[in-house]
Amino acid sequence: MPAPIFNPLVANLSAPPIPLVQAWAEEYSGAHGPLIDLSQAVPGYPPHRDMLQWLGEAASSTAYTGYGPIEGETVLRKAYAEHVADLYGAPVEAANVHITAGCNQAFIASIVAVAGAGDTVLMANPFYFNHESTLAMLGIESRFVDASAAQGFVPDVQAIAGALTSDVRALALVTPNNPTGAIYPPQMLQAVYDLCRANGTWLILDETYRDFLPSGSEAPHRLLSLPGWQDTLIQLYSFSKSFCIPGHRLGAIVAGSEVVENVAKVMDNLQICAPRPPQAAIARAIAPLGSWREANRMEIVGRAEALHDVMKRLPDWRLEAIGAYFAFIRHPFDGVSSVVVAERLAKEAGVLALPGAFFGEGQERFLRFAFANADVATIRLLEGRLVLIAP
Amino acid sequence: MPAPIFNPLVANLSAPPIPLVQAWAEEYSGAHGPLIDLSQAVPGYPPHRDMLQWLGEAASSTAYTGYGPIEGETVLRKAYAEHVADLYGAPVEAANVHITAGCNQAFIASIVAVAGAGDTVLMANPFYFNHESTLAMLGIESRFVDASAAQGFVPDVQAIAGALTSDVRALALVTPNNPTGAIYPPQMLQAVYDLCRANGTWLILDETYRDFLPSGSEAPHRLLSLPGWQDTLIQLYSFSKSFCIPGHRLGAIVAGSEVVENVAKVMDNLQICAPRPPQAAIARAIAPLGSWREANRMEIVGRAEALHDVMKRLPDWRLEAIGAYFAFIRHPFDGVSSVVVAERLAKEAGVLALPGAFFGEGQERFLRFAFANADVATIRLLEGRLVLIAP
Repeated sequence: MPAPIFNPLVANLSAPPIPLVQAWAEEYSGAHGPLIDLSQAVPGYPPHRDMLQWLGEAASSTAYTGYGPIEGETVLRKAYAEHVADLYGAPVEAANVHITAGCNQAFIASIVAVAGAGDTVLMANPFYFNHESTLAMLGIESRFVDASAAQGFVPDVQAIAGALTSDVRALALVTPNNPTGAIYPPQMLQAVYDLCRANGTWLILDETYRDFLPSGSEAPHRLLSLPGWQDTLIQLYSFSKSFCIPGHRLGAIVAGSEVVENVAKVMDNLQICAPRPPQAAIARAIAPLGSWREANRMEIVGRAEALHDVMKRLPDWRLEAIGAYFAFIRHPFDGVSSVVVAERLAKEAGVLALPGAFFGEGQERFLRFAFANADVATIRLLEGRLVLIAP
Repeated sequence: MPAPIFNPLVANLSAPPIPLVQAWAEEYSGAHGPLIDLSQAVPGYPPHRDMLQWLGEAASSTAYTGYGPIEGETVLRKAYAEHVADLYGAPVEAANVHITAGCNQAFIASIVAVAGAGDTVLMANPFYFNHESTLAMLGIESRFVDASAAQGFVPDVQAIAGALTSDVRALALVTPNNPTGAIYPPQMLQAVYDLCRANGTWLILDETYRDFLPSGSEAPHRLLSLPGWQDTLIQLYSFSKSFCIPGHRLGAIVAGSEVVENVAKVMDNLQICAPRPPQAAIARAIAPLGSWREANRMEIVGRAEALHDVMKRLPDWRLEAIGAYFAFIRHPFDGVSSVVVAERLAKEAGVLALPGAFFGEGQERFLRFAFANADVATIRLLEGRLVLIAP
């Protein structure tokens, strides 16, 4: 009998990176204290107790056991639209919102709506690995513009202009950035938006980490106020980090109603609708937990300061960039692969971080620290841990 | 500026069919009594109260707020494997299980694991529309074998043999069938499996409705007992119907560990993992709610009998097939499109059913009744409703 055949685009993908790194942790002896997990972005504090109560109430109610609207619960689309309208000072409405099961799903649903196998999507390098693997899985070609340390990991507008040939269906950017933490300035985003618009290219902005911006309540950009933004911008968001509920899987897309309509067709095939009980709970939580989220933002700003401080005392290591949730750290091992360094750091020093190589070519000198996972006291312990694998 | 471009494979998809049909209901005046909704398959009874309690407990617990394993919660993979092993008398293990957010996601994740744009997948006609639209969206070619009324809507094994050319990556079948209700006999499934195996083609069996089989606890087939089934069979299931929780979005794949490994790569891109709280709750529910599910099965067998009875008294209409959850009904309007008939039935008689045309070419004479949605008393009301649009 002929051997069974897998889709080569899937078979050739690497195994999902997070479980790989988490497996290293099992080999850490604990000799230097508890494991410090800076791998996957997971808030290091629990959800608000009201959040848990609302989640429980919705999940145990018969009101949400049936199928819901594909685009999302009306109450959540409305509540989130109001929140976005308020944050960006822009006229965003419920019809502009599509709810998804997390931000990875917001990305793939948006991408499938605008591009298919053989099309090209532009990204920054380094990139969020699931964006790259999603495109590869779908047979969509990834093209990259460099976002190097010398530029503070913000891609150059001229380089984007050069890469935006007529065949580029979408430019996918992440700000605040994953993996580097870099925060793209509003003027840069405006320039990139203008380029995309002139080229008929969708600008997909993943803003998963915007609630942790050091600048707080200032709008991250003004794009949603521009007339006709619906024909260019697709904005992605995750409720996972801000409300500390990644296990419940909830994200959102803000876009023009024509995009929402096409995304709904994709979502119907992906899973009909996002899980309903967490939608109902988040709809209740957005407004009343505003000050709790603000307090968390301040806490994470404090963690960033603590990491700054620690890294200053480790002259062999260099904090190259730090932003809302992540820091991109230059390790001291010239010519050693970032995977080897991360593996040693995990097994010998009990610190889980992601190797730069997971985020693109030319990133071997870096590690990504999801510093927001750990409290200030834990971050201070990094000084004693990093030196354990000094060159 | 150039117009923004959508993926033509998505733009050309019809709007999701269920909301379209549900919109007709708004125009029903109520003159003949409450709406009878036989459109989307939704159990017409609530979940067990313990199920609701377990869902609430899991959702309000901090144990499931973080990310979980991509393949699913270990407790659920184990509990579901034991259930499947028991039902099929076959050595299925937790490593053979991948949890998904519903059975549509089980389908797309399996398909992407084994086929990409330009490949061919074989299905029966009529088909479940989301299977067809999922393939179309991905640029995968659909090929069809006929499952006509004359054959009891079971595709002919010889026809499948003829259609299984070397380029067919997968054969996707649904038993008990959606839309017709037809139950594929174990010997037919064995013959089809043998053909697939000889051809190096994956057999994807969607068994969403198997808990409502009239035959009860008999195994629907013996394929999971065959040595090497892992290289041919991919079995799909949904917890939505059996546990009455479609809004929580939960399904499962049973397959060889190499399939599970590839599906995990797809799932990581689709949404990392299925929502965790319902996984924990279902893991608790599978064994203790066995007798409750059995009682529901018997209830639905009674509903099928009631529908048989009603249709006998409507000589212009004909019940062509009935199975675990659906009946396929021949309407009396020769030369009138099934969409027109379904729309009239909804607006004038307050009965929501799906037009045959949604399920493939040549199905214009049929309507799909999701009869299991309605209790016996409601099903009896159909007699007075269907005559309202007599020819």
